[in-house]
Amino acid sequence: MTSFTTAETSSSSLPPGDSRTRVSAFMKSLQDEICTGLTAIDGEKPFREDSWQREEGGGGRSRVLREGNIFEQGGVNFSEVWGDQLPPSILKQRPEAAGHGFYATGTSMVLHPRNPYIPTVHLNYRYFEAGPVWWFGGGADLTPYYGFTEDATHFHKSFKETCDKYHPEYYEVFKRWCDEYFYLNHRGETRGVGGIFFDYQDGLDPLYRGPYPESSAAIYSEKLPPQSPRNWEDIFGFISDCGRTFLNAYVPIVQRRHQTPYGDRERQFQLYRRGRYVEFNLVYDRGTIFGLQTNGRTESILMSLPPLVRWEYDYHPEPNTQESRLYEVFLKPQDWLNWPEKA
Amino acid sequence: MTSFTTAETSSSSLPPGDSRTRVSAFMKSLQDEICTGLTAIDGEKPFREDSWQREEGGGGRSRVLREGNIFEQGGVNFSEVWGDQLPPSILKQRPEAAGHGFYATGTSMVLHPRNPYIPTVHLNYRYFEAGPVWWFGGGADLTPYYGFTEDATHFHKSFKETCDKYHPEYYEVFKRWCDEYFYLNHRGETRGVGGIFFDYQDGLDPLYRGPYPESSAAIYSEKLPPQSPRNWEDIFGFISDCGRTFLNAYVPIVQRRHQTPYGDRERQFQLYRRGRYVEFNLVYDRGTIFGLQTNGRTESILMSLPPLVRWEYDYHPEPNTQESRLYEVFLKPQDWLNWPEKA
Repeated sequence: MTSFTTAETSSSSLPPGDSRTRVSAFMKSLQDEICTGLTAIDGEKPFREDSWQREEGGGGRSRVLREGNIFEQGGVNFSEVWGDQLPPSILKQRPEAAGHGFYATGTSMVLHPRNPYIPTVHLNYRYFEAGPVWWFGGGADLTPYYGFTEDATHFHKSFKETCDKYHPEYYEVFKRWCDEYFYLNHRGETRGVGGIFFDYQDGLDPLYRGPYPESSAAIYSEKLPPQSPRNWEDIFGFISDCGRTFLNAYVPIVQRRHQTPYGDRERQFQLYRRGRYVEFNLVYDRGTIFGLQTNGRTESILMSLPPLVRWEYDYHPEPNTQESRLYEVFLKPQDWLNWPEKA
Repeated sequence: MTSFTTAETSSSSLPPGDSRTRVSAFMKSLQDEICTGLTAIDGEKPFREDSWQREEGGGGRSRVLREGNIFEQGGVNFSEVWGDQLPPSILKQRPEAAGHGFYATGTSMVLHPRNPYIPTVHLNYRYFEAGPVWWFGGGADLTPYYGFTEDATHFHKSFKETCDKYHPEYYEVFKRWCDEYFYLNHRGETRGVGGIFFDYQDGLDPLYRGPYPESSAAIYSEKLPPQSPRNWEDIFGFISDCGRTFLNAYVPIVQRRHQTPYGDRERQFQLYRRGRYVEFNLVYDRGTIFGLQTNGRTESILMSLPPLVRWEYDYHPEPNTQESRLYEVFLKPQDWLNWPEKA
């Protein structure tokens, strides 16, 4: 692992003087662009917007679509907050930030479609500054109820193309990171087919700097020998492009699936699988925990939870069904880019 | 606070040689007694039983009632597990247990009634041994959807009577502890009308020994000057009696409410409020976290989650309704024993 010092950071990768203005303007424009794109496919119904202020500093703009044609519920949040001290969960990862104020801005989105053949999808991009350190994080991941390999491949391919424009190793590292992060340990399942995810991107090589996730640190540092540090502009450019990749990665899947007929069986399975989404968001999700720990706006943070959810004790899908295939194929890390054509 | 040393523990309060056998036999009999009592009010439908083994040591007996007359879902679990090391969340509270194997046994129960006028209820009693330390914990709490002060008073009075047989301060301390523990900080709400709750009862005075919950530690130690230590038999007798108090505390409430007519409005509110139960159990509940951290049986641990749940962005009850009264009266700590007759 490359050793890390404050001096190294400041010499190689200082953010520009207008970093906060530029990133928050981008995050707002990403929210606008996504809401416009979703309104276009869902029909006329506009998002409801709530602006909110945070007592300790900052605020946000929450947008929610309820009972749409395509989306049973969709939420797209922008927020920009600051305060005296980052919460302990983050300070543990970035001890250099202790004793400093922080600034954080980001956009996050979760969509819960009505038709069980359309996957749920999540996106989040975020930026932090705290004393001597700054970093970008985020990603996007897809959670099908009924799996289609061509959907998974399309989603991954879209992000792979964007990644490749910026760094030859981005896709491989961030795809793997996504599989590891969106993993329900107590279920032994991935949340879905993944996508890309990364955190603490601060321009220092290797791409991944420990201690999270431990299992990958060794692999990443072995695969990625120190190179010249990436600078702030490189990374901001990369995450902006990732954000703008979302609609092209997801909308074609919606268009392909939203007219597929379904009945009570598919609906019940969808409601049951939504329970896993709740379990992930409340037990593991870093964004949720950050929000709740920093007195964020609870309604905006928990907007990610599905409108209707079912739990069933000791449920197992019948063998040789579409439901069992979800578990066997789509809830495990897979190489979606090289998936055999007709598998 | 009384200072705590291993020597003090072993001289004043060693468990008897057959402690594990006796406590686990009690926990099993409590499960039997509760299941028999619930079957009697719910009708003919028996509980489904699953016995399970835990790879690292021990196992359990899960019993689930689904789609009953009264209970949409009810789970009553017995478990008895052991292993090399307690998980970090407990070692932080009991550092004396570090480096020792542990033994834990307990019974836990959550009932989700169908009729929104019947409150959800939870019970858990547990016993730990680890190296030089041992302790009992647990309690029972009531979560109404539509609040009735006489139900809250009856539930509290039942446990108060049991508490008073063992220690003049038990009820007051454990009632307060329950209000503090079953609290959703991100919502600013108690989970319901509470009951009693306690942890780390190891016979040392004061009843409560820090650091959890910090806000009460000072109050408890001021209220409760050191007395002669309670012994193992005293505390085991107390928690056994608490466990046996449950049916009398809850069944009369079910009988009073289960024929109250209700419609879609009440059902929707119940499903919405069940979301808070999920939030508490996945974000705060110590038993859930212990279970997930120790590779417990996920299906048994998450049996506490309701069968059907709804989330709604930015919902607020209409003023001057039964729904708003729940928030104003029943989701705050109250002195239920001295509630004015017709309030």
